[in-house]
Amino acid sequence: MAKKPAWVVEKERGRRAAAAETVWLFGLHAVRDALVNPRRERLRLILTKNAADRLGPEAIAAGGIAPEIADPRKFPAPLDPGSVHQGAALEARPLDWGGVEDVAAQGRTLVFLDRVTDPHNVGAVLRSAEVFGAGAVIAPARQSAPETGALAKTASGALERQPYLRVKNLADAMETARKTGFVLLGLDGAAEGTLAGALAELAGRPVALVLGAEGPGLREKTRETCDRLVRIPFAGPFGSLNVSNAAAVALYAVSTR
Amino acid sequence: MAKKPAWVVEKERGRRAAAAETVWLFGLHAVRDALVNPRRERLRLILTKNAADRLGPEAIAAGGIAPEIADPRKFPAPLDPGSVHQGAALEARPLDWGGVEDVAAQGRTLVFLDRVTDPHNVGAVLRSAEVFGAGAVIAPARQSAPETGALAKTASGALERQPYLRVKNLADAMETARKTGFVLLGLDGAAEGTLAGALAELAGRPVALVLGAEGPGLREKTRETCDRLVRIPFAGPFGSLNVSNAAAVALYAVSTR
Repeated sequence: MAKKPAWVVEKERGRRAAAAETVWLFGLHAVRDALVNPRRERLRLILTKNAADRLGPEAIAAGGIAPEIADPRKFPAPLDPGSVHQGAALEARPLDWGGVEDVAAQGRTLVFLDRVTDPHNVGAVLRSAEVFGAGAVIAPARQSAPETGALAKTASGALERQPYLRVKNLADAMETARKTGFVLLGLDGAAEGTLAGALAELAGRPVALVLGAEGPGLREKTRETCDRLVRIPFAGPFGSLNVSNAAAVALYAVSTR
Repeated sequence: MAKKPAWVVEKERGRRAAAAETVWLFGLHAVRDALVNPRRERLRLILTKNAADRLGPEAIAAGGIAPEIADPRKFPAPLDPGSVHQGAALEARPLDWGGVEDVAAQGRTLVFLDRVTDPHNVGAVLRSAEVFGAGAVIAPARQSAPETGALAKTASGALERQPYLRVKNLADAMETARKTGFVLLGLDGAAEGTLAGALAELAGRPVALVLGAEGPGLREKTRETCDRLVRIPFAGPFGSLNVSNAAAVALYAVSTR
């Protein structure tokens, strides 16, 4: 039997990784963050000689896994073409942040994302969630951005520190938060009340922000599960906020109330 | 003499466009927005048959320029490879929004961007600026994102409506704003005062927000030209906001004061 070409081997390896729910993180920053994170289960580390030098022995030792040194011209990690890996890739398991009950029990602001599939948007939301001290970002397992290398890169380290839960059913997760005492505020440009108005009325109660994808917005079931729909007031008749910008504004409004 | 290959012709055309300060906008949304914008000077419109159908005769007529119908397999616009043009490209002149004096005279919030070169970030800032009713986004002509198709796509229509000025010298433009009565607030994570605190003290005075690129932040000259440095309060010790998220938060804070 003929030997399989290298690209077939890599493609199969990528598929196996997907089936085993592992993720390939890439780029010096993302790999370093994941190496020094004690919560991260690491499976395989691939570095070019240059990347190993740039990461340094300390970060590599913290990872507790021997790096495979690779030729930069034949970098063997199964990454999407065009991924700026800088010679560093790490196969790891998604982080385990526990269940919705666990993160809700802390009482910090929650962010529910309904069908936000762009990893760059989710990555930016994770950054803002961390900055404003949110408890977790929660999204449905289907129709959301998986914990990929692209998401990790945009999240700029926040993926390692900010709980990101992907749940089977978003409405059920929202109900769990409500039972723990959260008020569920759905962001909707057509809502009557403003976010600031609702926050003033709710005084110190813990709040969960629910945001939908640009365009379609919140699904009907998600919308119905919210306690209130609120809007961020707009000055002009045109335009709309990018979902990560809307999340940042809403998290700021909650954190400064 | 041998005929030049097509790619050479296209490359030269792209260079000529750059020299003549024209921009190639692409994608159905961006092209439609630019066709119906009376302020936009249009030079060349290239459409596939399918894109022409999807744009519709009304938008094409509004553009006042006859489309060249192109074969989708040999789309002749000089775009970066990988540009999702959807069969629609328009060569146009950058919009003329007048000088800093003109936009400052309106008294609406200004946003100065110091060396923010990523077109996706600038596009998102333009969207937020429009949503929160800012007067203009102002950046140095060098070291800022030019008015490209990628910027137009991220701006999601805002490029056609939200003044974006690229000036020779950012500090001079800031001085012009100050003379018109603006208070220049530089965003800096290490500043002592908060943005909210400064806004409360300044009551109704017109405000200009000054943001730097992630990492390097504000240049020294830019920082010195600010009236005050302020920060967006962070909950945790880690992380930082993406520049477009920081701009959205700051614009929201100004618009709701």
